[in-house]
Amino acid sequence: MREIKRVCVVGAGAIGSLLVGHIGALPDIDMTVLVRRESHARDLNESGLKVTGKSNLTARVLASTDPADLGDVDLVIIATKTTAVEASVKKFKGYFPNAAVMMIQNGMGCERLVRESGDWPIIAGLTFMSGVRKSDMHVDYELDTPTWIGPWGDEPENPGYEAIKQVEALINHSGLICEAYEDLRPVQWSKLIFNSAVNTIGALTNTPHVPFYADTQELSDLGNLVRDMMAEGVAIARAHGVELSSDPWAMNCKAVSQGGSHGSDVYAHITSMLDDVRHKSYTEVDWITGSIVRASHDVGLPAPYHETLYRLVKGLEKSWSLEPGGQ
Amino acid sequence: MREIKRVCVVGAGAIGSLLVGHIGALPDIDMTVLVRRESHARDLNESGLKVTGKSNLTARVLASTDPADLGDVDLVIIATKTTAVEASVKKFKGYFPNAAVMMIQNGMGCERLVRESGDWPIIAGLTFMSGVRKSDMHVDYELDTPTWIGPWGDEPENPGYEAIKQVEALINHSGLICEAYEDLRPVQWSKLIFNSAVNTIGALTNTPHVPFYADTQELSDLGNLVRDMMAEGVAIARAHGVELSSDPWAMNCKAVSQGGSHGSDVYAHITSMLDDVRHKSYTEVDWITGSIVRASHDVGLPAPYHETLYRLVKGLEKSWSLEPGGQ
Repeated sequence: MREIKRVCVVGAGAIGSLLVGHIGALPDIDMTVLVRRESHARDLNESGLKVTGKSNLTARVLASTDPADLGDVDLVIIATKTTAVEASVKKFKGYFPNAAVMMIQNGMGCERLVRESGDWPIIAGLTFMSGVRKSDMHVDYELDTPTWIGPWGDEPENPGYEAIKQVEALINHSGLICEAYEDLRPVQWSKLIFNSAVNTIGALTNTPHVPFYADTQELSDLGNLVRDMMAEGVAIARAHGVELSSDPWAMNCKAVSQGGSHGSDVYAHITSMLDDVRHKSYTEVDWITGSIVRASHDVGLPAPYHETLYRLVKGLEKSWSLEPGGQ
Repeated sequence: MREIKRVCVVGAGAIGSLLVGHIGALPDIDMTVLVRRESHARDLNESGLKVTGKSNLTARVLASTDPADLGDVDLVIIATKTTAVEASVKKFKGYFPNAAVMMIQNGMGCERLVRESGDWPIIAGLTFMSGVRKSDMHVDYELDTPTWIGPWGDEPENPGYEAIKQVEALINHSGLICEAYEDLRPVQWSKLIFNSAVNTIGALTNTPHVPFYADTQELSDLGNLVRDMMAEGVAIARAHGVELSSDPWAMNCKAVSQGGSHGSDVYAHITSMLDDVRHKSYTEVDWITGSIVRASHDVGLPAPYHETLYRLVKGLEKSWSLEPGGQ
């Protein structure tokens, strides 16, 4: 990988804006942004991107809805939700021939969508940071928790670990927190199994992440389901040769007993899937629970809990089409 | 069992009112009704109960909130929802020493609640008829589909089949439709397994019983879940020595392809559990899906689908307590 001088962030929601605002404020970096709306690109080109909260920065950027306007770059960071990755990648297909592509989505498996559109080296990643988007040109940096990156399991040498360390250094230099792992899978799977259970159960029961999720006294208690579903996920990870970095059930019990995992109250309450469902917005279930279902099929293990929760959330999404004026 | 001359119906919702209005209109029957509200008893005593729709009848009745007012009876029919059976039985504990008690609830297992309060002979039953309650004194008879009765599996000789045939004759004589079975379990389990899947999945996905329930093309399709859950139920029934009268999956596919099972559009749409959940009213899940979960434990079979759906519906019910002003 070449020295990183030009970076393109794809998508400027809360996470994308945090990356643009921090990395783009570095004096030796040219920051470009690929967005969906013309008005968003115009605003960013005119005003730059301001970060408040845990940082206080303004980045000058070159933004466009057309990758042809952005020139060559060394690193692309896809910062859209999983549900928008496919469309985003198709948009810059054929561009950025010398770039590595870094992912940061919830869930797993979006890397394959990137590979279908080009042969860029791929860096896997997940993030725990959070921010609140105040406008197209302003994001508030709330949780300064880390972003974890590492090799993509399917092609661990493309790029090699040295390139990944370069990206880690760049992000840390910008004021965000990044940790590189030689094997990302143990942390990725731990978080995935945790997210899969807590998000789908929350979306279907309309329940924020509260102590009910650890109740196992009565046969009917929700904690029994959380525990059984997580145990199934752990078995599927093991069958893929992954030893988890953390026990998802312990993560769950700790989070609800503290009123928040990762030291945050924000996290503990409304999960992203519950928020999506409340807004009748398609969820990331295909990349969270769906990726565990597919992984179970790859190794021939049964996955009744993950299949059930996956199909129920997909069914709930489908129900919106039955409503008058539905999607 | 003595000749049936005095009948007490417990609970006068739609189903209870249909029974009171028909059986109570027979000239040789004294009909009594045990209800919860004083005003309901007073209205029934003053005006009797009128049936319109598929029948056109008015029954004179003796109604009370206190079983001591009702005297001796030969047959008690408990016509409340499953969720009210326990409280109803406790109310007439110690009364009606010569009566047999007939059940008509969705699901299974309510008989045990009766046995805990007295040693009445018990007749098991389930009903497909339906009506719409227009007022405390008026019910509209909509679906003239049958009520099935038979021995309670735990005590099949108490009362014997002859007494059950007597009840069948009485109900048919009144203009309702009743069929007695020497072994009720094959029809009971078929309906139970069908109901368990369709009701819980509908309640969680906010989906009436529509063709989605038979879709099995995509990994994510809801029909895959319906089919897998029903297959699990069939295995649990078999382990209890029950060969089903109908295949629940075939019942499901037929119902959605016809726009209604049992020849009715009404049925096909909003299931009772979905209706309960939409009104934030506690469901019958403990007696429907919960009874299959308990039956799986009795024979040591795994029941991940039924356990999952059971716990999710219980979790959804619990979520109402988290809301401001919640239960």
